[in-house]
Amino acid sequence: MTTNTQILLAETPREKLESSHFQIKKGSVPTPEDGQVLVRSVLLSLDAANRAWMQGATYKSAVEAGQIMHGYAIGEVVESKSRTYSVGDVVAGEFGWQEYASINAKAVRPVGDHRPLTHHHSVLGIAGLTAHHGLLEVVGINEGETLLVSAAGGSVGSLVGQIGKIKGARVVGVAGGPDKCHWVVDELGFDACIDYKEGSLSKALRQHCPNGVDVYFDNVGGDILQAALFAMKMHGRISCCGAVSQYDAATPKGPRGVPGLLVTKRLTMRGFIAMDFPALDAEALTDLGDWAASGKLKVVEDVLEGLESAPQGLIGLLAGENRGKRMVRVGPDPA
Amino acid sequence: MTTNTQILLAETPREKLESSHFQIKKGSVPTPEDGQVLVRSVLLSLDAANRAWMQGATYKSAVEAGQIMHGYAIGEVVESKSRTYSVGDVVAGEFGWQEYASINAKAVRPVGDHRPLTHHHSVLGIAGLTAHHGLLEVVGINEGETLLVSAAGGSVGSLVGQIGKIKGARVVGVAGGPDKCHWVVDELGFDACIDYKEGSLSKALRQHCPNGVDVYFDNVGGDILQAALFAMKMHGRISCCGAVSQYDAATPKGPRGVPGLLVTKRLTMRGFIAMDFPALDAEALTDLGDWAASGKLKVVEDVLEGLESAPQGLIGLLAGENRGKRMVRVGPDPA
Repeated sequence: MTTNTQILLAETPREKLESSHFQIKKGSVPTPEDGQVLVRSVLLSLDAANRAWMQGATYKSAVEAGQIMHGYAIGEVVESKSRTYSVGDVVAGEFGWQEYASINAKAVRPVGDHRPLTHHHSVLGIAGLTAHHGLLEVVGINEGETLLVSAAGGSVGSLVGQIGKIKGARVVGVAGGPDKCHWVVDELGFDACIDYKEGSLSKALRQHCPNGVDVYFDNVGGDILQAALFAMKMHGRISCCGAVSQYDAATPKGPRGVPGLLVTKRLTMRGFIAMDFPALDAEALTDLGDWAASGKLKVVEDVLEGLESAPQGLIGLLAGENRGKRMVRVGPDPA
Repeated sequence: MTTNTQILLAETPREKLESSHFQIKKGSVPTPEDGQVLVRSVLLSLDAANRAWMQGATYKSAVEAGQIMHGYAIGEVVESKSRTYSVGDVVAGEFGWQEYASINAKAVRPVGDHRPLTHHHSVLGIAGLTAHHGLLEVVGINEGETLLVSAAGGSVGSLVGQIGKIKGARVVGVAGGPDKCHWVVDELGFDACIDYKEGSLSKALRQHCPNGVDVYFDNVGGDILQAALFAMKMHGRISCCGAVSQYDAATPKGPRGVPGLLVTKRLTMRGFIAMDFPALDAEALTDLGDWAASGKLKVVEDVLEGLESAPQGLIGLLAGENRGKRMVRVGPDPA
């Protein structure tokens, strides 16, 4: 434990994120100050939001060029100058893209006993809470309604569609490429999945949602949101979770149909993030844990090996190459 | 009562609406059939939505080229083949841009005893209901909140801002030109009014809404909606009432920031039309009537003379030349 491999955002990307925007640095292991813990990172979460953070302040401050890349991770306390945590405790927090972080004990939270640890990034982590709150709290879904989910094979979309099925909805996904679309139907149990890279999206929406869409869970924004707006039923609801199609764009495009179609169809669009409903987290995690244990909910994880795989892993995630929750194993599980 | 002056939509406009898109026709006075009433039109409402109807089906079917232009009007029953209405009754309905209409009695509604009759198009009509429901029901407004209203001098905006003041909000308007902006502040009592034709809208929003916007009442869409999105506070609400800036556009533009800013600021956008809350109409009309009678709410009306003034009146309305509720006097008030 002498060097601390770190990945910096070397340059703020203006358009497409590339590996040249990152830089690996061999730093030193920081010494925790009073009130801090030194954490060894175990599993680093990769999220489309990581890219959004480079564009400027969002729900958190921006990542600036020259800084250690921001990231949420699970790790093990290896040294403690806090009365809250002891060596060996497993914690989660904003440790960044590095092997070791010294961080204020108040800025971390304990990770529960459930194993495998990877589940705390997927079904029992931010992905699970995002899917549960974003579908059931932000817009709601009723039996027999048609639910459309973009990025259907991704960390959140794969869970949203399955939760929709558990609640009795007809679920149509949108994903890229025939293989992923077949997988979304065959493995995740969606009723249909539209390949947005193939043919007319509007035509496919008319075919697969002949009576229109009651609820659209939007992970992507852009052209897919635009097509979905035209496919919405009267009084439809749109849960706005992210805009991954726009994060690499120098000048993001707004969807035609806003606000015109919102008026004529009386649509509601509502944005949220996972942390907006803390009072409901415990109930959501109970649901998610029960559904996963009973096999009603398939947990799909995509674990890359080694911190150095993070830049390409994020770039690939933005291109849609992951299936389920992508994360990076930075080091071995705690003993 | 031998000829029936009618105005047709001669050609569907692709971009800017012009008087050449209309055509005057001298038709005959229709004979009512069983169940119908013959109505003499008195006051024809002009609304930005009239232009939207030319773009295709909205919340009602499209106006097609060659048809009598659609329009909502107040008139007097001059012949009745219905047991519901008698000669001399004052009624409202979709009589279109013409002097006389034969219409099914079920498609008209009686107009109450309140006079002047013009109020039934403004404060006690669709404009009043749109403002009341759209502000108080669709998004709500709390004392001390900052309310931004576009088309602040228009039929709906002029009422929305005043209702916001009655409810204790800080109200900032957006309107075109210094004269209209001064009038919005001096006559309607808004706290400030931004001239969107002058300088940077974003800068003006920062100046006049230094703590951000809690509620944006959007009558216009387009660039003003886009700037408002960037000025919204966390958890802000947007009431989507119309998109007048887009009705003359061949290819409407969507606002950048949708859905990105909806997510990061957890905004809600909700579209509606006046007719969505029939159970609340009576209460709203009581409020509006009381406020108008007590002088808390100034009723501003812009009455053009003669059916032939309708085309230019609508074109001018789309350019923002009206102050308050614009309508056309087609004939004298019933005796």
